[in-house]
Amino acid sequence: MPMTVPAHPHLGDSNPSIGEYLIRRLQDYGIADVFGIPGDYVLSFYTLLEKSELNAIGCTREDCAGFAADAYARVKGMGALCVTYCVGGLSVCNSIAGAYAEKSPVVMITGSPGLRERIHNPLLHHMVRNFRTQYDVFEKLCIAGAELNDPNTAFREIDRVLASCKRYSRPVYLEIPRDMVHVRPGQNPVYEHLEVVSDTRALAEAVEEAAKRIENAKQPVLLLGVEIHRFSLRDQVLKLAEEAGLPMAATMLGKGVVAETHPQYMGLYEGALGEPEVTRYVEESDCVVMLGTFMTDINLGIYTAELDHSDCIYATSEELRIRHHHYHDVRLDDFIAGLAERKPRPKQQLPPAPTDWNKQPFVLQPEEKMTISRMIDRLDEQLVDDTIVIADIGDSLFSSTELTTRGHTEFISPAYYTSMGFAVPATLGASTASPEARVVAIVGDGAFQMTGMELSNLVARKIPAIIIVLNNGGYGTERLLHPGEYKFNDIHTWNYHKLPEVLGGGTGYEVFTEGEFDTALNTAWDDRSGPSILHVHLSPTDSSRALDRLGAKMQQTVVGG
Amino acid sequence: MPMTVPAHPHLGDSNPSIGEYLIRRLQDYGIADVFGIPGDYVLSFYTLLEKSELNAIGCTREDCAGFAADAYARVKGMGALCVTYCVGGLSVCNSIAGAYAEKSPVVMITGSPGLRERIHNPLLHHMVRNFRTQYDVFEKLCIAGAELNDPNTAFREIDRVLASCKRYSRPVYLEIPRDMVHVRPGQNPVYEHLEVVSDTRALAEAVEEAAKRIENAKQPVLLLGVEIHRFSLRDQVLKLAEEAGLPMAATMLGKGVVAETHPQYMGLYEGALGEPEVTRYVEESDCVVMLGTFMTDINLGIYTAELDHSDCIYATSEELRIRHHHYHDVRLDDFIAGLAERKPRPKQQLPPAPTDWNKQPFVLQPEEKMTISRMIDRLDEQLVDDTIVIADIGDSLFSSTELTTRGHTEFISPAYYTSMGFAVPATLGASTASPEARVVAIVGDGAFQMTGMELSNLVARKIPAIIIVLNNGGYGTERLLHPGEYKFNDIHTWNYHKLPEVLGGGTGYEVFTEGEFDTALNTAWDDRSGPSILHVHLSPTDSSRALDRLGAKMQQTVVGG
Repeated sequence: MPMTVPAHPHLGDSNPSIGEYLIRRLQDYGIADVFGIPGDYVLSFYTLLEKSELNAIGCTREDCAGFAADAYARVKGMGALCVTYCVGGLSVCNSIAGAYAEKSPVVMITGSPGLRERIHNPLLHHMVRNFRTQYDVFEKLCIAGAELNDPNTAFREIDRVLASCKRYSRPVYLEIPRDMVHVRPGQNPVYEHLEVVSDTRALAEAVEEAAKRIENAKQPVLLLGVEIHRFSLRDQVLKLAEEAGLPMAATMLGKGVVAETHPQYMGLYEGALGEPEVTRYVEESDCVVMLGTFMTDINLGIYTAELDHSDCIYATSEELRIRHHHYHDVRLDDFIAGLAERKPRPKQQLPPAPTDWNKQPFVLQPEEKMTISRMIDRLDEQLVDDTIVIADIGDSLFSSTELTTRGHTEFISPAYYTSMGFAVPATLGASTASPEARVVAIVGDGAFQMTGMELSNLVARKIPAIIIVLNNGGYGTERLLHPGEYKFNDIHTWNYHKLPEVLGGGTGYEVFTEGEFDTALNTAWDDRSGPSILHVHLSPTDSSRALDRLGAKMQQTVVGG
Repeated sequence: MPMTVPAHPHLGDSNPSIGEYLIRRLQDYGIADVFGIPGDYVLSFYTLLEKSELNAIGCTREDCAGFAADAYARVKGMGALCVTYCVGGLSVCNSIAGAYAEKSPVVMITGSPGLRERIHNPLLHHMVRNFRTQYDVFEKLCIAGAELNDPNTAFREIDRVLASCKRYSRPVYLEIPRDMVHVRPGQNPVYEHLEVVSDTRALAEAVEEAAKRIENAKQPVLLLGVEIHRFSLRDQVLKLAEEAGLPMAATMLGKGVVAETHPQYMGLYEGALGEPEVTRYVEESDCVVMLGTFMTDINLGIYTAELDHSDCIYATSEELRIRHHHYHDVRLDDFIAGLAERKPRPKQQLPPAPTDWNKQPFVLQPEEKMTISRMIDRLDEQLVDDTIVIADIGDSLFSSTELTTRGHTEFISPAYYTSMGFAVPATLGASTASPEARVVAIVGDGAFQMTGMELSNLVARKIPAIIIVLNNGGYGTERLLHPGEYKFNDIHTWNYHKLPEVLGGGTGYEVFTEGEFDTALNTAWDDRSGPSILHVHLSPTDSSRALDRLGAKMQQTVVGG
């Protein structure tokens, strides 16, 4: 993993306070914006933030700040949020858990009661069980953490925790008691950066074995996962694929790690859920090289995938396995770079054509009622190189796997942790990370009701995102997973397109037909004045083909005995 | 603590499944409604819920379900919510933490992956670190919990956990793997109820010592806390107060535990923040009898309270202390009952008059701009015996401490944990627990933006609550706590009164002047067709007198060194 951090950062003033040092180190990691909500235990740090070059970006809710920071991290390499003690911190558990599960490097900063206030264990407001409760909770949800309660160690603790965030690409936790923010340890901070290096002999043996297996295989294929993006390994992967002439597929969470218009790209591999041609090609392969792939149930089509480990090379930031043996201490970046350098020469030719398996030219049928599949087909025509697509979960995700990512198109979705309500706050995060890009978010009505009011800050910041709300009157995926006339899957409908009147900005569109969608999308696309919200009415039983396949498979496990 | 649960509940069918048994036991504790959001790991339990006599009440967000269940518990004695694994569960951490801090008995029910799915530790969706992560987190936030993964112990575990919820009046955690819901252990469930009893000799000594101290004091006073409500001890407390002729004051969190119109009730004791007459009376007392009081910073006016423990009797569900010595194993209910029975005869007369310290008759000034103090004065006239007032935090709380609770008026607020966004979902919970009562919620704009869209389910259920949104364009309390031109305390303004157009129901009112507020309140009061939302514009610098006093005091600690 190449560290983008200078080993000895320039530290400006030589006697920074703990708060100032943290702000500088965040900047060293490329963070320019911090999402969050102030609160009394973190106000002293907020005043520092406001004076610094970092932008403090307010959100409606703390969990939204968490999702925004997560999306920001996925685009920019690291993200941060800042919230108050317990009432703020414990409101982001789910967002941080999602970042942990999906390896998004998010720095969670939180205030806490001053050390001087804690003598005699008083019952201070926002306290739960004791002063350490919040730390105890986030120890379960973060890869590293520290309470900055000792000036002698605070700088090194900040360094250690931020380095872990980068190295493991997972969330970390930093808690600053409010009376420590302005404390100046008076040391000259020295940043020691301990780089983890590969075992060179293990690396050499692993590269050689992998190369030989690729060369001896009849039908080798690369299966790419999200870590290629998280650890910025796309160029190395493309070098390997192009020089060796290897076809590529991606998992759902890894969608978009290479441009889907690349001539060697085949499509998403999702077991029985995906396109049959891709499924067959990958499962018939006698050498599947999985790079940075999470072996999750969703990624593997709820275990409908039939991959024989005897035929697999499996390399991630956590492990390297070839067939049934393991190599330790081999970094993912070194392995991929080594393999690209080794230039394996497979026997096979590339498959007949880099197929665009299922795309039909889209012909508008203006009077037809809108369906989710047709909506996706129409939207796919609109995407350009710098579009960022954000899919919430449920059919927003399943249907939009059929969109084609191009050039620098990013596809962002909580495709493994699958937490509803990610998309709208993530739109704020991604737009902030990449202001020149256009964000299109696809979100179900149930998910929108959870966090969609973060639209408020898209309006306030005049962010020209396009939010497509798929209204089927409830939790559509669950209807599929567990058929029957259950009321609990129905939700109260909102006039989502009227939200601009409440928010005093943005533009709403109500869509029933294909023609209305076409007009709304064209108008919204040309409108850079602020966010657009497209309220698309769907039948309660409408679903994409992918969801139909998923539903059939999952019904077996959901209901139980 | 009197247990309202039958020692040997009638269990209907003799061979219930684990899910069925849990539902019956919830009913035994008086729970008729369960708040939550379904999700695939909990769908099998949801189908049971829907078939049962319990109502499954959907919410927009899981944390709202948590707040609703908390308010329901405060009104009805116990509440419950049901959410899916991790993405649902970890979204309620803050709500459950608040229930823990403020001793609200909430049962959190969550699904999880089936045991049969867990073999070989696959990466199932919604998973964070391992299968136990969610349990580990809630172990920090609950008083008891169980994973119902063994049919041999499931019934007893359910009994144990629900009994702890009642006994400690704190949240508990029950996790059901989805393949265990329909499992029938085949045992005849036997409920063993182990009642904790007081040590009779310690009790007798403590009662006698307390009674003597009251009788020898010049100016004894009862200071009542929220546990009087949580453990249903109001009648015993009133018996004690009335027979002994003792004046009563209450803490902020305990506001309304006895009717504030009671002739012996003096007002809220909040240290330097409160009414000077009450503060003086309590602090000059040579025998403050604190019953069920949390010694929190907010309750004690951010430690401006000056209570000398040498003069205090301090009895809660957790400890009994007289002056500087402690009695163990004396139950709060036994102590209060014993003291009432003992009938102490204090020397003092009641204070000159049960004063209504600060009430002036309200005279409408229709053209005047609305201020928060005037709003509260006007509202106070409207309250009737069965009103439930729910105050969010910040000045919603501080100002509404001046409202007078009457008869059965309930006053509900997260006055210790002070989590923003409690009020609107709590309105759903309290209205469900007490359908005949009228709920008036007071909520700031910042808090409303967090969870106010739960209004959606008030509309869907045609609940005639009155939601008063105090719009000062940001986090007003923080402006007071930390003065200065900081942008981070400002938020984007919504046209809150237009939300009924988005939600397809309810009625909105925009209020600038006293006259408009008067008209809106009168109209809303007569309208039982659904919720009313009063959008009250306030000056960004408007604040109640209590907040002014608090701000002056807290500025010293917030900013730090």
